[in-house]
This record gives sequence, C-alpha cells and structure tokens, in this order.
Amino acid sequence: MDKRAGHRQRAAKAHEERRARVQEALATQGLSALLCAHGANVLMLSGYASVIGAAVAIATADGKLVLVVPEDELKMARDSWADDIFFFQAATLNAMHTGRAALRSALAKALDACLPEARHGGARIGMEFARAHLPASYASQLVYGAMLDQLIEEIAPACMPVPADTLLAQLRMRPTAAELERIRASCAIAAAAFHEGAARLVAGASEREAAQHFSEAYVRAVDRHADVTRADAFFYCMSGPNAAHAHAAFQQSTARRLLRGETILIHCNSHADGYWTDLSRTYVLGQPDARLARMQEAIMAARRAALAAIRPGVAAGAIDRAARAVLDEAGFGADFKHPTGHGVGFIAIDHEEPPQLHPHSHEPLLPGMVFNVEPGIYIGGLGGMRDCNMVAVTEDGHELLSPFQLEHHAWSIE
Amino acid sequence: MDKRAGHRQRAAKAHEERRARVQEALATQGLSALLCAHGANVLMLSGYASVIGAAVAIATADGKLVLVVPEDELKMARDSWADDIFFFQAATLNAMHTGRAALRSALAKALDACLPEARHGGARIGMEFARAHLPASYASQLVYGAMLDQLIEEIAPACMPVPADTLLAQLRMRPTAAELERIRASCAIAAAAFHEGAARLVAGASEREAAQHFSEAYVRAVDRHADVTRADAFFYCMSGPNAAHAHAAFQQSTARRLLRGETILIHCNSHADGYWTDLSRTYVLGQPDARLARMQEAIMAARRAALAAIRPGVAAGAIDRAARAVLDEAGFGADFKHPTGHGVGFIAIDHEEPPQLHPHSHEPLLPGMVFNVEPGIYIGGLGGMRDCNMVAVTEDGHELLSPFQLEHHAWSIE
Repeated sequence: MDKRAGHRQRAAKAHEERRARVQEALATQGLSALLCAHGANVLMLSGYASVIGAAVAIATADGKLVLVVPEDELKMARDSWADDIFFFQAATLNAMHTGRAALRSALAKALDACLPEARHGGARIGMEFARAHLPASYASQLVYGAMLDQLIEEIAPACMPVPADTLLAQLRMRPTAAELERIRASCAIAAAAFHEGAARLVAGASEREAAQHFSEAYVRAVDRHADVTRADAFFYCMSGPNAAHAHAAFQQSTARRLLRGETILIHCNSHADGYWTDLSRTYVLGQPDARLARMQEAIMAARRAALAAIRPGVAAGAIDRAARAVLDEAGFGADFKHPTGHGVGFIAIDHEEPPQLHPHSHEPLLPGMVFNVEPGIYIGGLGGMRDCNMVAVTEDGHELLSPFQLEHHAWSIE
Repeated sequence: MDKRAGHRQRAAKAHEERRARVQEALATQGLSALLCAHGANVLMLSGYASVIGAAVAIATADGKLVLVVPEDELKMARDSWADDIFFFQAATLNAMHTGRAALRSALAKALDACLPEARHGGARIGMEFARAHLPASYASQLVYGAMLDQLIEEIAPACMPVPADTLLAQLRMRPTAAELERIRASCAIAAAAFHEGAARLVAGASEREAAQHFSEAYVRAVDRHADVTRADAFFYCMSGPNAAHAHAAFQQSTARRLLRGETILIHCNSHADGYWTDLSRTYVLGQPDARLARMQEAIMAARRAALAAIRPGVAAGAIDRAARAVLDEAGFGADFKHPTGHGVGFIAIDHEEPPQLHPHSHEPLLPGMVFNVEPGIYIGGLGGMRDCNMVAVTEDGHELLSPFQLEHHAWSIE
C-alpha cells in the first residue's frame, strides 16, 4: 500500500465518522447547514487545514460537504474530503478590489450546488458569531469579520444565520479516531523536538536561543514525516524569575541567560497539518535543590492524580480538583494559578475550549475527548514549573498522547 | 541618557504626531471616537503591540486615548502612550465563563472615562467591520467577532457604530517619524538574519532546515537589541520548481533538498514589537547559468526602475508599471504574476493594504508612506526569483529600508 493510498483511506474513514456526527448535530439543532471560515472549523468539517484563513466550508444536513477556497489553495484543498470545491481569485492584475466579488460569486455557486433553499427558500444556517482563538496557521491570517455575513445576506436573503459557536465547539471536542491519529502524530513530532532540544540546553544561552534549539529540532522531525504537508511550532523558554510569569495567557522568551539550578520552562504549541499540540516541560541545569525537588515531586504527583481520575462519566471539574488537592497538600495550592486543562487539537490554547478542566465544571467526560493536563507552580521571584501533557479519554480511562520525559531524571540536564 | 528614557521620548514623539493625525481624521469624518481590537490598529492608535488580540483601544475626537487590556498584558501596555488603562481578568478559578462580563465591565468604565456621550447621549464610533489580515502576534490570536459589537450595543445603546476600516487603513498607510524608526529597526534585525542565513545555505539541506538557519540568526539578532520586548520571524524557503509557486498568497518550506544551480527563494515576515517586515531574497548555490543570470539582471533592473520612479505625487500604479515594463522588455512580463507592492509595517502581507502598487492604482504617493517593492519572476518547472524590499517615500524620492544584499554577487553562495 503506498503512502498516498493510506492517506486517502484515513481521510475516507475520518470523513465517514465526522460526517455522521455533523449530520446528527445539524438534525438535533434543526439547522440546514453549517457555514464556517475559522481554520479549526474548516478543518473539522472538511479535513482541510486552510492556510490563509480565506477558505469557507459548508456542511449540509443531508451530508454534503463543499469547500470554497482561494485559487492558491486549490491543490492542497483537493486532499480534503469535500464533495465539491469552488475557488475564487482573491486578486488579479486586471483590476483592483476584485476579491469580494470573486468570493461572492464562488459562494453563490457553492450554495446553489449544496443548499439551493438558502438562495430561494428558507434555511437556518449555523455560522460563527462568538469570539474565537485562532491558532496561527501562517505568518498572517485573514478574518472576514462582518463581510461574510453581508455576503450571505446578499446572495441568500432568504437564509437565516444562527450562532453555531457552541455546537461547533462540541463537534471539535471529540476528535474522530482518524483525527485523533493525526493529533497523536503531531504530539510525536513535538516529543522528538523536546528530546533533542532538552539535550542542547546549556547555561549562558539566552531564552530565545534555547527556544530556537527546540524549534530547530522540530523542523528536523517534520522532515522525517513525509506524510505531513505543513507544520509549524512555537516554542517559548522562560527561566528563573521569568518562569514565574508562565501562568499568563501568553509565553515569552527573552534575552535572559540560562543559569544552573533554576527552573527552565519550555512551552510548545505546534501543529502538523492543522492538528495542534499544547505541551510544556520544565528542566533544571544540574541537580535541583531541595525546594525544586519538592516542586517536581508535587507536579508529578498532581499529574498522576489527574490522569488516574480520567474516565468517561467523571466531571471535568473532578480532574482539576484531583490535581489541585495534591498541590494543596504539598503547600503549593496558591501557586497553581490556572485550571488544569482545556480542549486541544483543533484549537491550540483557548481556556474556554471544551472540555474545560475548571474546578467548577460539571461537564461529564466522554470517550474520545482530547485535552491537556497542565499542573503548574508559579512562585514570584523564584521560578515556575509546569508539566503539560495531552490526553485522550478512552472507554475505561485515558491515553497519554505525549508519553515523553515523564520522570524527574529527564528534567535534570547535566 | 538611559535606554528607558530614550524609549519614553520616542513614545512621546510618536504619540504627539499620531494623536494629531487621528484627531484630524476623526474631525474630518465627524466621528466621536475610534474603537479597535485588531492588533495593527491597537498598535497604531496607542503604541501598544497587543499579544493575544484581546486589547481594545479607544481614541476620542478630543485626543484622549484609552486602552482596555487583559490583566496579563497590563505591565506591557504601560509602555504605550495611553492616558488611561483599564484591565479585566479573562478567566478566574472562582467561576467559569466570566471573561465576557469582565470585558463588558472594563469597557463600560473606559467609555465612561473617555466618552460619556457614548453611554448616555449619542456618539458615532468608528469600528472594524471589514475583512482584515491579522499578522501572527502569537501562537494563537483571539478575535472578538460579533461579540464586541454586542457589548457596545449593550453598554452604550445610544452609540452608533460606523465602519472605519478605510479610515484606519489610511491612518496606517503613513507611519509617523517615530513609527518609521521602529520599522527601520525591524528591517535591520531581519537584514542581519538574511546575512547570516545566506552564509549557511548549503546543498543537501532541506528547505525547512535552510529556513530554520535564517530564523536562528534572527533570534540572535533580536538578543542584541535590548530595546525590543517581543519579536518573531517567519522564514520560508522555496527551492527549484517549488520557488515557481512563491507568487501564491502563502509561502511554504518543504523537505525538498537544496541543489546547486537552482533558485533558492527566502521569504521573511518578521516583527519587532509589532512593526512588521516583508522581505525576500533569491540565492543560487554556485554561479547562476546564463538563464538565471538574465533573470537576476532583469529583477535588479526592475527594482531600480521602481525605486527611481518613487516620489510624492506619482501614482502608485506608475511604480508597478515601471517595474513591469522592465520585466516585459526582458521577456519575463508574463512571469511577473502579482502587483509590485502594498503597504507594510502595521500589516505584514495584505495585498489590499494601501498604498497598493497595482497596475491600475491612481493613488498618489505621499511622503512617509511605507510599502514593499517586490519584482518577481516565476517559471513553472524551473524556479522563481523575487527581490522584495521595504521602502519609505521621502520628500523628494525614497528611502530604502532594507539596504542589504542588493547586488548579484550577494545572491551567489559558494
């Protein structure tokens, strides 16, 4: 079996399971279709990881899937499981400002093909209205804003746009078996980078240089995966007192030089063909002193407690409380400043992505859910330590998607 | 003078010139205020390069400037020239889904402070409605979508939101002297990376590895600039037949190995504290054959012709036609598949960012405009060559913001 065939088979399988779920969701909500432009939703509906953010996916209640993509992405979009692909030229040399008209025309054709009632009758169409956290699919990303709503109103005046953000989040929350396989592969590439990057940590390097060594290793790992078309990684390194700020909504590498005996927190968000990871490890150059060793023990125990609590039917909040109880007990309760996790895969780092492993969440875990588990201790002036793994809920427990550098001997670099 | 003081002085100067222009624009349009959340506009209005995309900037007709930022960004936002900063907690451990209410409350306070008539009278507020190309400020970026409009409607029902996208683009189009200085510095960091990265090009390396060497050099260059807080670079390498596709809306490095005698196109979008570059160079390992040498000559002549045509009052389209005429004459007219340039600085790669150096643009160039000049030749199956520079319009001509590797001896790597 050649690789290409394998790829097609995986795509077909992903399509089947995903299409069934989307159809079910549309039926439940009484929607005629979903029409999305956010990369995470386009990928989830069609298997296509759009690059620039200009692609639109339409999934109908009767199971049709149509993509509208800029011409530049047409070749790549053909690897999706779309039944039909319409394309538009975002720009030409013949005239200025033709992009809107071109998109409008392609969208109209797409709706004619898959949902004629949106043009000439009545149709409830689920669309994106809420805030969204868009993973960086490229150096810059197009967002349509109100333009997409306006176009729909112009070409399909009989159609009623309905906010579908919650529904879409629920659909993203449980990757299909084939999607899970892609997330697993994405984690494996990042794991290789963590192995190689950690081995290159050295006192005197700047945080930015240290992060760069992980990125470099990531690139080499990607080159070894011929079935990955596009991949990118964002590695950040925060050391010593800087690591104490790593609980913020963003990570930041600086020119600070690494010192022996301090916490060196490496954070990674990476994707392979649109499937994202959220991973962290914390290293020490040399042996940790007694205090850092206690932090390491507490972090590992919190992770073990969280993982042990994961199984279908348990409330997401219980996983948070399991980790938090361990850190409380060890005297670090006040230093664990964020929830234990959130959905990851289609989305990289949104703390509102379900399931939220938040102390107050009653959401029951379901088989197939994918999220991160990230116990952390942040002590101002001293340092910060986080161990962030990716996990899938199985029929009777969990699968660790990031089984690397789990024990403290891997966290001390000589 | 310490660096900190220098930074503050630059900020004060930027503020003065920028505030005057914004006030003038608001007066001309009869707007009470601008209220923006896109990073490029927040930076332009306040001097603050927001990280996650959650910051909101409000500039009023009477010259007040207020920022609303997530608490995590408060410390960084204090380096802006905002008169007042309101902050909100996007999440807490005490309850779930508190972010919207927290933002709503902070926004209401901000409007009370700077624009009470928006809450209790009538006010036309310019906001973002159109499509936008958001440069990647972080691994993931928050976009508010319809949520921001809803919040404004809720807290300021008397206020009338007006699309201000064109106005904002015009304000971005001409950086102030202080902003230009930051763009110049951003280009200088990238230039250092091009120098070092080019020296490391070697046959047998993959495109991804080659791009990585430029990124690595970029990181080292950033470490040498203590006045830069945040910086990031996206380097892409396309070689041989892959480079023929580099005219697409996106660039893509692959596992393909570099060969001697082929075009190796390196594209860069980088930013230092939110000020973006758009730069490309094309190298050959060894000496170019006669055909590639002719392409190099044509590209350099096209650049010279474009630059020579730049001065205030000339139509943007004339710059495109100057470059295009040279490539036509050399027999490469059909292979130059995109316009000659577009605005760059606050925005990285939007071909609709003014001024558009499009063959059909009648827009007259103004002193202070910043854009790229990117003659390119793309020949299917053979290769692609692009020379992309950043340029500012001066009182009587142009300033080249990327004066590096301009002659063909720098394009051949032994």
